[in-house]
Amino acid sequence: VIAVGDERITVSFRGIGRSARVARRSTVIAAAREAGTEIMAACGARGRCRSCRVQLLSGALPPPTLADMVQLGEAELAEGYRLACQCRVGADTEVLVAAPVAENAFQVLTATDADAPGLELDCGVRKRYLSADADDPPDEARSDLEITLRGDPGADDESIPLAALRQVPGARQGGAGITVTSFGGTVLCFERGDTTAELYGVALDVGTTTVVAYLLDLRNAETVAVKSGLNPQSVHGADLVSRIGYATNGAHQVRDLRARIVRFANQLIGAACASAGVAREQVYKVVAVGNTCMHHLLLGIDPSAVGRAPFRPVLRHGYRCRARDAGLRVNDGALLMTLPLVAGFVGADTVAMVLSTRIDRRPGVRLAVDIGTNAEVVLASEGRLLACSAPAGPALEGGQIHDGMRAALGAIDSVTLDPGGDLELRTIGDAPARGICGSGLVDAAAALLDAGVIAPSGRVLTEPGEAPAAAAHMRVREDPGGRPEILLVAAADSAGERDLVLTQADVRELQLAKAAIRCAMDTLMRAAGVADHDVAELLLAGGFGNYLALDRARRIGIIPGIAPERVRYIGNAAGLGAQMALLSESTRLDAQALAARIEHVSLADERDFQQRYLAAIPF
Amino acid sequence: VIAVGDERITVSFRGIGRSARVARRSTVIAAAREAGTEIMAACGARGRCRSCRVQLLSGALPPPTLADMVQLGEAELAEGYRLACQCRVGADTEVLVAAPVAENAFQVLTATDADAPGLELDCGVRKRYLSADADDPPDEARSDLEITLRGDPGADDESIPLAALRQVPGARQGGAGITVTSFGGTVLCFERGDTTAELYGVALDVGTTTVVAYLLDLRNAETVAVKSGLNPQSVHGADLVSRIGYATNGAHQVRDLRARIVRFANQLIGAACASAGVAREQVYKVVAVGNTCMHHLLLGIDPSAVGRAPFRPVLRHGYRCRARDAGLRVNDGALLMTLPLVAGFVGADTVAMVLSTRIDRRPGVRLAVDIGTNAEVVLASEGRLLACSAPAGPALEGGQIHDGMRAALGAIDSVTLDPGGDLELRTIGDAPARGICGSGLVDAAAALLDAGVIAPSGRVLTEPGEAPAAAAHMRVREDPGGRPEILLVAAADSAGERDLVLTQADVRELQLAKAAIRCAMDTLMRAAGVADHDVAELLLAGGFGNYLALDRARRIGIIPGIAPERVRYIGNAAGLGAQMALLSESTRLDAQALAARIEHVSLADERDFQQRYLAAIPF
Repeated sequence: VIAVGDERITVSFRGIGRSARVARRSTVIAAAREAGTEIMAACGARGRCRSCRVQLLSGALPPPTLADMVQLGEAELAEGYRLACQCRVGADTEVLVAAPVAENAFQVLTATDADAPGLELDCGVRKRYLSADADDPPDEARSDLEITLRGDPGADDESIPLAALRQVPGARQGGAGITVTSFGGTVLCFERGDTTAELYGVALDVGTTTVVAYLLDLRNAETVAVKSGLNPQSVHGADLVSRIGYATNGAHQVRDLRARIVRFANQLIGAACASAGVAREQVYKVVAVGNTCMHHLLLGIDPSAVGRAPFRPVLRHGYRCRARDAGLRVNDGALLMTLPLVAGFVGADTVAMVLSTRIDRRPGVRLAVDIGTNAEVVLASEGRLLACSAPAGPALEGGQIHDGMRAALGAIDSVTLDPGGDLELRTIGDAPARGICGSGLVDAAAALLDAGVIAPSGRVLTEPGEAPAAAAHMRVREDPGGRPEILLVAAADSAGERDLVLTQADVRELQLAKAAIRCAMDTLMRAAGVADHDVAELLLAGGFGNYLALDRARRIGIIPGIAPERVRYIGNAAGLGAQMALLSESTRLDAQALAARIEHVSLADERDFQQRYLAAIPF
Repeated sequence: VIAVGDERITVSFRGIGRSARVARRSTVIAAAREAGTEIMAACGARGRCRSCRVQLLSGALPPPTLADMVQLGEAELAEGYRLACQCRVGADTEVLVAAPVAENAFQVLTATDADAPGLELDCGVRKRYLSADADDPPDEARSDLEITLRGDPGADDESIPLAALRQVPGARQGGAGITVTSFGGTVLCFERGDTTAELYGVALDVGTTTVVAYLLDLRNAETVAVKSGLNPQSVHGADLVSRIGYATNGAHQVRDLRARIVRFANQLIGAACASAGVAREQVYKVVAVGNTCMHHLLLGIDPSAVGRAPFRPVLRHGYRCRARDAGLRVNDGALLMTLPLVAGFVGADTVAMVLSTRIDRRPGVRLAVDIGTNAEVVLASEGRLLACSAPAGPALEGGQIHDGMRAALGAIDSVTLDPGGDLELRTIGDAPARGICGSGLVDAAAALLDAGVIAPSGRVLTEPGEAPAAAAHMRVREDPGGRPEILLVAAADSAGERDLVLTQADVRELQLAKAAIRCAMDTLMRAAGVADHDVAELLLAGGFGNYLALDRARRIGIIPGIAPERVRYIGNAAGLGAQMALLSESTRLDAQALAARIEHVSLADERDFQQRYLAAIPF
């Protein structure tokens, strides 16, 4: 927060009863912190989400930033909405904080041009309101169901589930009109009166680490709420291999993992519904994506086989069932659909990423990379689609790092070298440091490499080498076990009043992660016979990919030497694909053909993979 | 039991450790009673069921009776099986009582020639065993499901329920062979190993008073077990109107009624499976019939509308769902199918009766009557099918009768006039009298009419009229309230050591029942324009109909003046129809067209019905 001159202004927060005197041109989010209140900045106060949006009620309305325009749209801007992290106020201002959203809720930043065109709103769920008129003249021979359906129900299929059938008497009691909700030839439910105005769907992105539920209005494609949080299966291991390993212990463990994710999905759906004033029963369609293991566990299918050669999924095709059968608490007749998988380690999330980027339909060589606990890479080239996955581990999400944390308030997310050669750290929201997140880790490694504190091999140099000793060297010390570590923030300056450090082990974790990701990309490029300069576009997706500073990522070698202008951040591409399938049946059905087209390249099957992996470990 | 001379023989019962010295030519059932053990005689010891069958292990094997031949078949006869109620032993004999079956279990006595011909065994459920061979060569791209199905699962339907999908990993673990059970294009389940030898189905006949479960082997159409018992909904009223009235009170009451019938059906299925050594999980198809109210309650549908004009069923068509969705505990993927209904008071049981008698396909005018708490009548004439129902009340099943009881051991089931003009009573199994059942009631009324103790108006005559006073008049007395009653069995001779009587109210109940039944038949004959002498066949079905003595039934006017040789007893026609639909898909599917053909004649809509009903009340 830089004060221009020492002119001070007052920012007050309506409803909260707090205000602060801050320097002119402070951001609203900084003023809020000063006033002793927190505004959620799920994306790390980078203008990449809507969680911190506020309404400016008085005072001069500053012009919108680019991020404001992308996230808020014209209508909200006109009403005085701004992103608190972007909006710098120049005069006394009164601010209304928008309804708080769940921690880390974020809206997909649709940075590709692929999502907008050609997505026809056709969710497949139909509501028909039928007035009570058709009851006359009373005809004893017809059943209530026939009158309700205005025709013949299928006499020998399962198109009307028992749960729906049981709704008929109550819905029609007293000669009320009735709303019939159907999907294709299948009845979802019967509701009393005219409920055609309520038609919602949920897109679920079940990640190994993060689960996101998007609540969409299926009548107008509007995202009305987004909730996300940590996958509660994490207690059984941060990465996929640990989860599968736990599941392999037996049916009880599979049930445990399933119960955790289903319960959590229900919580997220409930929270999303509550924040939007929507009843769970108004959700009629759920589309879920996730890697193969998460996909299987959500459905309650034992994923053990995915962990054993030949790493075969139990189910690969797109699947459809009643959401209640899967344990999801939405409308009793709602459908749950999962997108198809490609292989044991190339899941529905990857298919969703292709769906949302449409790299299969665009010319030139394109790479899409979803960096999460597992990294999935898809390469499109001359009509071919190649995919592979690599276990990056949780390091880039702050896991298995000494002072690692997720990208949240107080996380060190930017590390540069100052002119004096020392590290300059920035935290998310400029809050006191609580730890280091994935992008901070990448930055720190890049800066320490530049400073000569870390050798290209990854070794932390306790003694400066040939290069002139940078100030950063002063930070190197030994832990009680005699192993080298780098002091990032001293206890006095940290939120937890303890030293925050980067250990040699942390650097090794980062190296393993970046080698896996890079190898996956290189392997596909080799398989397709393309070089770095052939790549027309590199699309970075996923919680981490979106916050990666490109130059540093290249510095440490996570991504190949692709010109910066060819790299694009595409947000949560898997979640976006799920939303597209939720909104558009043709898109959802298209996924099946798409999945069948994707050629799976197994890293383990590649010749010389082990050597190439080892070779990728040095920075 | 009549002793021929005073020669006595010993009948011993193996396993039970009891024996008795009885007169030669005693029945085995009488000998058992003498020995202090009971053999169940569910049909009233009339040779109409298999419940009392025993195996004669030593002694001269008496030749089989006609009933033995009908019920036991050649194989069992050759092994020494006989019906204990029919078999009279002439020498010392050792007897093995067949495994006891549940109270009142009985096998359908298929007295019509309609059930045998043309029933093709085609239950629709298919089992395929797939050996593990197809796993080679390992192909990572295919899923376990594809390998299991040897093809492509439907990518966008609900043909593979989640419960089945979850079975795949366990069933295939360790490369085991797998059995796929399907119905049409729908998967029911996946089972480990080769289970093709086990394929069972259940036909459920849900009556207002009695529920019967038939367990059939779907590979060979054999009935392997039958269990029946009183519908536990009876606590909420013996007849349909009371049940519907109770259901009308609210959703809680509907749930209560549903829970009672579902729990009881599960008990019967469990007992049938246990007695046949079959696991519940080996039952893959359930076909249920019942009147509209029972049908709705089994499915958990509020039947209230059936009790209000226009008496409309919620569902009329044949219906199919997963048995587990209805709460039935059989295989998790098993299907439950209900036969179609005709109207609010002409249910699936009536359709099943037509299916089992096939009166629609046979020439001439035919009447089928199912006498239960409700009486359903169908008339076939020149290609038309007319049906109606009448509330007979529970009197003919022993309900609402002072000393009424079901047709079980000790029930007075035959009443005649002896040469001295007094009543001669017989009880089921010649046991001490415990009460009077429906056929006993009809007999008693006929005998008392003949004796002039009851006037044609139904009034019990305390003073003999013009006719010479029969000895039976001595039985007439007044109850403590001064109302006339007829002593049937004095306390000293009854099982409960209390007087068994027939009250004036009992006679009135019987009159209302017979008037309802008779009116229903007459109404259909009038509607079709046929007279008594036009009727080629009168088929009597149902628990009571089977035990009705024809001459007495005509004497009191329950059935019209149809020549005795044209009357046939057809057992539990509804249950038989359910079994046929269970065994034959073409028969089941045919039911839909059949139901649509049946013209419902509403008694209430008929002109002059009230007068005709009142006119039918006198004997």
